[in-house]
Amino acid sequence: MADKFVYNFNEGNKEMRALLGGKGANLAEMTNLGIPVPYGFTITTEACTRFYQEDKALWESLNEEVTNHIKDLEAANEKTFGSTEDPLLVSVRSGAPISMPGMMDTILNLGLNDQAVIGLAKKTDNERFAYDSYRRFIQMFADVAMELDKNNFEKLLTAKKKAKGVELDTELDSNDLKELVEEYKEKYKELKGEAFPQEPREQLDLAISAVFRSWGNERAILYRKLNDIDDAMGTAVNVQTMVYGNMGDTSGTGVAFSRNPATGENQLFGEYLINAQGEDVVAGVRTPQEIHTLEKAMPEVYEQFAATAKKLEDHYQDMQDMEFTIQEGKLFLLQTRNGKRTAQAAVQVAVDLVNEGLLDKKEAVLRVNPKDLDGLLHPTFTNKAKDTNEAAATGLAASPGAAVGKISFTAKDAAKRASEGEAVILVREETSPEDLEGMVSAQGILTARGGMTSHAAVVARGMGKCCVSGASDIHVDEDEGTMRIGENIYTKEDTISIDGSTGKVYIGNLETQSPQLEGNFETFMGWVDEYRDMKIRTNADTPRDVKQALEFGAEGIGLCRTEHMFFKEDRIFQVRKMILAADLETREAALDKILPMQEDDFYQIYSLMGERPVTVRLLDPPLHEFLPRGEAEIKDLAHDLGIEPNRVRERIAELQEVNPMLGFRGLRLGVRYPEISRMQARAIIQAAIHCHEDGIKVIPEIMIPLSNDVHELKYVIDEVNDEIEKVFEEKGTKIDYLVGTMIEIPRAAITADEIAQITDFFSFGTNDLTQMTFGLSRDDAGKFLPLYLEKEIYEKDPFQVLDQKGVGFLVETAVEKGLSTNKDLHLGICGEHGGEPNTVKYLYNVGLDYASCSPFRVPIAKLAAAQAAIEKENK
Amino acid sequence: MADKFVYNFNEGNKEMRALLGGKGANLAEMTNLGIPVPYGFTITTEACTRFYQEDKALWESLNEEVTNHIKDLEAANEKTFGSTEDPLLVSVRSGAPISMPGMMDTILNLGLNDQAVIGLAKKTDNERFAYDSYRRFIQMFADVAMELDKNNFEKLLTAKKKAKGVELDTELDSNDLKELVEEYKEKYKELKGEAFPQEPREQLDLAISAVFRSWGNERAILYRKLNDIDDAMGTAVNVQTMVYGNMGDTSGTGVAFSRNPATGENQLFGEYLINAQGEDVVAGVRTPQEIHTLEKAMPEVYEQFAATAKKLEDHYQDMQDMEFTIQEGKLFLLQTRNGKRTAQAAVQVAVDLVNEGLLDKKEAVLRVNPKDLDGLLHPTFTNKAKDTNEAAATGLAASPGAAVGKISFTAKDAAKRASEGEAVILVREETSPEDLEGMVSAQGILTARGGMTSHAAVVARGMGKCCVSGASDIHVDEDEGTMRIGENIYTKEDTISIDGSTGKVYIGNLETQSPQLEGNFETFMGWVDEYRDMKIRTNADTPRDVKQALEFGAEGIGLCRTEHMFFKEDRIFQVRKMILAADLETREAALDKILPMQEDDFYQIYSLMGERPVTVRLLDPPLHEFLPRGEAEIKDLAHDLGIEPNRVRERIAELQEVNPMLGFRGLRLGVRYPEISRMQARAIIQAAIHCHEDGIKVIPEIMIPLSNDVHELKYVIDEVNDEIEKVFEEKGTKIDYLVGTMIEIPRAAITADEIAQITDFFSFGTNDLTQMTFGLSRDDAGKFLPLYLEKEIYEKDPFQVLDQKGVGFLVETAVEKGLSTNKDLHLGICGEHGGEPNTVKYLYNVGLDYASCSPFRVPIAKLAAAQAAIEKENK
Repeated sequence: MADKFVYNFNEGNKEMRALLGGKGANLAEMTNLGIPVPYGFTITTEACTRFYQEDKALWESLNEEVTNHIKDLEAANEKTFGSTEDPLLVSVRSGAPISMPGMMDTILNLGLNDQAVIGLAKKTDNERFAYDSYRRFIQMFADVAMELDKNNFEKLLTAKKKAKGVELDTELDSNDLKELVEEYKEKYKELKGEAFPQEPREQLDLAISAVFRSWGNERAILYRKLNDIDDAMGTAVNVQTMVYGNMGDTSGTGVAFSRNPATGENQLFGEYLINAQGEDVVAGVRTPQEIHTLEKAMPEVYEQFAATAKKLEDHYQDMQDMEFTIQEGKLFLLQTRNGKRTAQAAVQVAVDLVNEGLLDKKEAVLRVNPKDLDGLLHPTFTNKAKDTNEAAATGLAASPGAAVGKISFTAKDAAKRASEGEAVILVREETSPEDLEGMVSAQGILTARGGMTSHAAVVARGMGKCCVSGASDIHVDEDEGTMRIGENIYTKEDTISIDGSTGKVYIGNLETQSPQLEGNFETFMGWVDEYRDMKIRTNADTPRDVKQALEFGAEGIGLCRTEHMFFKEDRIFQVRKMILAADLETREAALDKILPMQEDDFYQIYSLMGERPVTVRLLDPPLHEFLPRGEAEIKDLAHDLGIEPNRVRERIAELQEVNPMLGFRGLRLGVRYPEISRMQARAIIQAAIHCHEDGIKVIPEIMIPLSNDVHELKYVIDEVNDEIEKVFEEKGTKIDYLVGTMIEIPRAAITADEIAQITDFFSFGTNDLTQMTFGLSRDDAGKFLPLYLEKEIYEKDPFQVLDQKGVGFLVETAVEKGLSTNKDLHLGICGEHGGEPNTVKYLYNVGLDYASCSPFRVPIAKLAAAQAAIEKENK
Repeated sequence: MADKFVYNFNEGNKEMRALLGGKGANLAEMTNLGIPVPYGFTITTEACTRFYQEDKALWESLNEEVTNHIKDLEAANEKTFGSTEDPLLVSVRSGAPISMPGMMDTILNLGLNDQAVIGLAKKTDNERFAYDSYRRFIQMFADVAMELDKNNFEKLLTAKKKAKGVELDTELDSNDLKELVEEYKEKYKELKGEAFPQEPREQLDLAISAVFRSWGNERAILYRKLNDIDDAMGTAVNVQTMVYGNMGDTSGTGVAFSRNPATGENQLFGEYLINAQGEDVVAGVRTPQEIHTLEKAMPEVYEQFAATAKKLEDHYQDMQDMEFTIQEGKLFLLQTRNGKRTAQAAVQVAVDLVNEGLLDKKEAVLRVNPKDLDGLLHPTFTNKAKDTNEAAATGLAASPGAAVGKISFTAKDAAKRASEGEAVILVREETSPEDLEGMVSAQGILTARGGMTSHAAVVARGMGKCCVSGASDIHVDEDEGTMRIGENIYTKEDTISIDGSTGKVYIGNLETQSPQLEGNFETFMGWVDEYRDMKIRTNADTPRDVKQALEFGAEGIGLCRTEHMFFKEDRIFQVRKMILAADLETREAALDKILPMQEDDFYQIYSLMGERPVTVRLLDPPLHEFLPRGEAEIKDLAHDLGIEPNRVRERIAELQEVNPMLGFRGLRLGVRYPEISRMQARAIIQAAIHCHEDGIKVIPEIMIPLSNDVHELKYVIDEVNDEIEKVFEEKGTKIDYLVGTMIEIPRAAITADEIAQITDFFSFGTNDLTQMTFGLSRDDAGKFLPLYLEKEIYEKDPFQVLDQKGVGFLVETAVEKGLSTNKDLHLGICGEHGGEPNTVKYLYNVGLDYASCSPFRVPIAKLAAAQAAIEKENK
């Protein structure tokens, strides 16, 4: 590790993000670009790592470096730490290599003490400002660095205002604030057991340590987990000369994006507060003004800011999210970073930047996070629903989409009810980082306060989750468990619908509709398709699913589950008759009735899909799933079949299983009852021949589930081929078809070299493969899996993100062995992981030809596949 | 493949078993040793393989070779095929590389036709003999080569005897037999649709084909499956000049062993029939005479036979099983092979041969089939039971051991009832190869007819299964379903007990006892231990099991299941209280009550085991297994616990699982309720400290079940170590202990490199590993696994014999990866496969240090391990 742990801003640049953090690298970059940035220095992320190695303590060589850099800062600013004439004050901010909004803690005005406050008053000729800064500093320091509850200080402030008979902080005069500083210091001593540190250097060291410590706090860890950020990365600390937005009406502070982060529109977007310090805007304490009003208020500053934004955007080739402060009419940039945005904005910005010549198409494709597309693909409320329902309240359209659910007033309650399968909307006065888990669990988020850049809005957009913020007609009483709008009171039993695209809040359950994908999305997906060489299919069982998937660009069906067709009302009777058959003849008679229905299903699906590949899986679930449960149903069925109810009960008992996941299902049914596989093979092929007659040259793919042994699989394939030969003979025609198997049992992966010799394709069934590789039933894991994730025993839910180490080992083994004996083997995945971007990228690199996922995830999988191809090429 | 498919007897030797089959190789060896063997030739096993490639047809080059060898045979014997003066007659017998008694078909007197019979009569001056031979030939040929039901011919024979008013075959004169030959030929034509083939060469080709075909018959396939014989091996065909045991009172035929195959005693053992052909003895049609009576009847022949037996035994260095024929006072050996024997005899013979200087100890160890030891280790009736019960009948002590069960009269019934868990004794007039499956399923076999070398006796000894044969007081009526002894009639509802060591049959259920192992067995096992370097431990949970296992030579406990202790009456209440506890405090209070009981269990087991290693597994099964099922029990429990019955019902429902095999069990319990692991760790260590105080330096091994991930395992190990540290502190002493895990989930095997870094040992739980690798629940496989075995989809039941291809791949992966990060890792197996000889040998070669199995299988595992070590050294 390096000996140098501290860099002046002019020593760094934007490429040094890993070492200086995003904020530090960008401050350095802006400094070098000649943009007005208050001068300062950055303590590196390596220092953070060393801090943890030193048992959360600073060490001598770092202290020396910091001392030297402070000297530089004092020299550059011609100010001195603790001076009673012109004291140096600094801000201390965290800055990790990857932006983590709201997670890390900031301290302003550091360096103030009983002496320096006099100097500040003298220098600024503004005693009130000096003491206001001091009392803010004490409160912030106590809260952030010392983890003392800030409410203790808020109460003193409120009491002071009450005593003075005023309402606003700004109505307190400098004497009031002087008193308040004394009260704060006393309170600090009372809570902490020692006096408020007067020595600026001691303040600084405590603040640096606090930043480093905050890297390890629970909220930060959770955020990193949610966003796939490495825990080992560490955070940098930025120490920067203070500038003041709270020096009167020619001062202010704001946050703005170079484009609209919700829609992508190419227009400055943001908010500012006059006479305020930075934290006031983000925290949503006062409702800020829209950025364009600054043009009128301070035209020169506005022009300078707009030009700076453009300069930064051109330089970074991306939309910027900037923090600025105006100190007595002078603009300072405190931070810039690539702005977080909704999926809609991400696509819009990417397309616009290409059109503006700032980006090439490949880079544009890499710019959009596949996960975020999810937000674009979610349903919206139908026009009819919107027309016929009146909004009960309206807030800001903070994150687009539509969400319906019951009201939940706390993060904990939301998480709990969601884990029980309930759809909830988290309704809060305003959200804070503590609410993160509840936000993850909720369908959508509604807040009564806070703007477009409030915590709720920023985090929800990051998650692609519907959010309405600042709906000020709403009054939330968390303790009472009520939400009041006017005269009406709603509780957690009430369902509401929120529209994150319009900001409207409805009472009741509004009808939603699938998203309409057009314009930029189409353009963008066109580029995605240009660079992608892995096929993306869909899992679809019904013509309705198929249509949806085609709209989303599915290139085939990777998994058509025939059993879903078995459950249709007009068929289940024949299916049950087949299962209850005492002999082959009765069973075949029932199958004969099912045959034309299945054939028609396949015909319809093929007709919709045209010549795109369609993989049909033979019957998979245990037979008992098709039999009735209730006594009345059993009696009805027995009556319809003309048999004794006891015969039905007996058969149900016979088919009961201890571990159905590992039981009599999949191709095991086909070994025991070959006539079922034969009927299905016949339906698949006859439907395809029908299509050929229509001029659609379908090549059906017959997929046999749950094989674990080549002999077992061959037994079923022989039956299937034999039946198909019969069909060919009967019809006097032949068509091509493929026969393959799912690889979803560890032994199938291990013996893939044998299995590949008799199959045309493998489709990885990673749901079951995960269950068997982990020895973990998804149905039962609810008892302990949440605990495992909470305790970080499992880094991720293996049913969400494919476990590359264990399950991946088997997938890689199967691919390698399979190709060793059959170089033409097609390889795909049809488990739910097929729509998870990290998994798609991984499987692309493993060598799979296609991934198949639910219709809604097709664009996500496509984007992930395109990025994987580009990333591979870039390597 | 070779061009040469036929070998004269003098062209071969005993090393050519794979090519010539066992019988052919031994006939060649005997020929070369100068032992009187009727001359002939052998068609190779390669011809059998080619026969199947030729779609079950003979081919030209083979036909030519056979023609040439027949010419040689005619020249050597100075006889001609079909001659009316002195015809050449031959026997045609199968002979696979591995002996398969009763499975293959034999044809005698081939070459007889309407012409040759005249020649035979003329040459032997015995017309009656000639026609008797002819009618026997027709019947055998029809039955064996043409698969026509032999009963058709038996009926004609019976009718003829009735018409003549005689009882015995021998009472028919030559005219009767001439008539019978005509009737037989007519019947043959009627059944077959074509005339009985008159051309000797056509007869021969049909017979050769029949032998080859019989390699593929169901019985042969089943036998091979039961005896682990490769289907691809093929059988040879031996064509040999006929000699006649049915030429009058100076002729005869017999079967004898050079030592007693039941006890191993060094004394000729066997039977013969005067004036009979070979099949008569084996089929048990007439009750034969004991071999030693031959000394009186034909002293010279007896002496010659005894000398030949000794010569063969010295030559083969093993006990011989010989077939011989005496033709008019002249002895011919027709076959010799190493004799099948009981485990008792195998051990006795091996020890004796070493003592006689014929074998060295290593060879002796290789001579005993580990599987067969099973027969030695089975229980016998207690002396008290034998003293206080009178035998209802007595037969031959055909295969030792004691068996108790209900009567079953057919193989089918026996198989069915056994599969339903009933213990049955198969009771038959006599057995035939068709009964094989029933014999496998039954506890023991009882026949009314047949000697010590009858089908029942030979097969039962081969299986190590108790058998009493030839109990002639017993009258079996299969159609009526009754067994009569004197006045008493018994049905399938009656229980009988049979003693295969004394031949006694008892009515009722006699008490059995564990086997007493001493004498030769001890000597033999001493040699086994000399060459063995893999340790054999046992799976034992109770002091009683432990004592039994120590008697069998267990070298440690590889699996002590703590949950069995939880079920004891005095504990289950506390266990249930623990499970139903609403909070940690109540749970810990219940665990505090269980602690001293568990501690005492471990103390007792350690005390018995001395300083042998003891591996204790932490609680494994799902908690619902401990809760009551019935309503009354639930109410009682609720009352005892002072809670509402609904609370108990709720908890039961809560713990219910869809797939308990993949559910909330194993170390998952320890993650959720660390206090359980802590209590168990404390009990294990406190008991060990107690032992140390007694001077027994126990090093306990703590085994954590069901891990699938290193972080999960570490979580539990940390808890365990932490608790143990507390114990050490409290007791003021420290002892050594090991912590390891079971490898029973595929992912644990795959990530073994990580897991090995925090463990001292792996113990392969191949039961669960098989279930998960195959995706096959043992509890549910009953619905299809028998079908899989029947259809030969699975070669073997993977729960009986470890699947080396699939499960073995994971075991090998785990061993390799585990040792790569922890070279001191101990490796063992504690699944039920640990007592299966093939698996033990395989795992020895994979590199495991120990196998642990049920107490009764310890000697089997030891022998397998010793053989594996010797075989490895011999390579």
